[in-house]
Amino acid sequence: MCVEKTPWEQVTDFHGHTCPGIAIGYRVAVLAQKEMGIRPTSDSELLIKAESRSCALDAFQIINKATIGRKALMIEDTHQPIYWFHFAGTQELLKISVNSALMKRLDSSHPGPLSPREKQNRNLEMIQLILTTDEEDFCSLERVPGVLTKG
Amino acid sequence: MCVEKTPWEQVTDFHGHTCPGIAIGYRVAVLAQKEMGIRPTSDSELLIKAESRSCALDAFQIINKATIGRKALMIEDTHQPIYWFHFAGTQELLKISVNSALMKRLDSSHPGPLSPREKQNRNLEMIQLILTTDEEDFCSLERVPGVLTKG
Repeated sequence: MCVEKTPWEQVTDFHGHTCPGIAIGYRVAVLAQKEMGIRPTSDSELLIKAESRSCALDAFQIINKATIGRKALMIEDTHQPIYWFHFAGTQELLKISVNSALMKRLDSSHPGPLSPREKQNRNLEMIQLILTTDEEDFCSLERVPGVLTKG
Repeated sequence: MCVEKTPWEQVTDFHGHTCPGIAIGYRVAVLAQKEMGIRPTSDSELLIKAESRSCALDAFQIINKATIGRKALMIEDTHQPIYWFHFAGTQELLKISVNSALMKRLDSSHPGPLSPREKQNRNLEMIQLILTTDEEDFCSLERVPGVLTKG
């Protein structure tokens, strides 16, 4: 039987592993997809600028179809978990900022060394937290006037 | 019936369109895959450095599974069609340089303006040339001592 992969499976297959970073990207990408809606014109391309160089980028390449090769995904590294979405041809940007309290919680190191099994469990706990926490605890959304330029 | 996509279909689906740039990437990626062989150890990751920021990058993300999010694909833009492949943990690099005569032929602009149909036909001719030209006319391969560092 042929079962189509879920979007989450497509993302983690492409990324090559499952980690908190790709879970953040997945949740941001799905939120952006919902918020941005369908493309305003047939030739309007979705452009994304990420303010951090992280695993999250791979989710945007799959879910939002903004690839690095097509220059639709741009990186301007300020080390902030901030992502900008823009339909070329419009004058509006969607800014998604992942909650800094959540990022701190993810970054906090566990006291003492962890066994591979403990590490894996901690990883899974973090992914579950990222994917299930309430939206207002996950990120803030803002719409601002502006454009992104491909390149 | 469920028919699995060919590698070329997987690449062009991911990239979002078919163009000479993605055809170059596809051919380089497949060549590299053949030349690099299976990974020397189970945890040895394939790292790639591209010397140009082009459509080709998307082929490496699909065929060689070196994604930008995982930092396995790096870009150091010298505007040259040169691609470096390295298995982490080894001391050897594979360098693939696309033939400059071929690149010139692709870059040469057509005299006079083209209709959308003529443009599409020219695109398809170029893709066919890239995918079918003899390997020695497509690129040169070189193995040199060295490493790539992720990041």
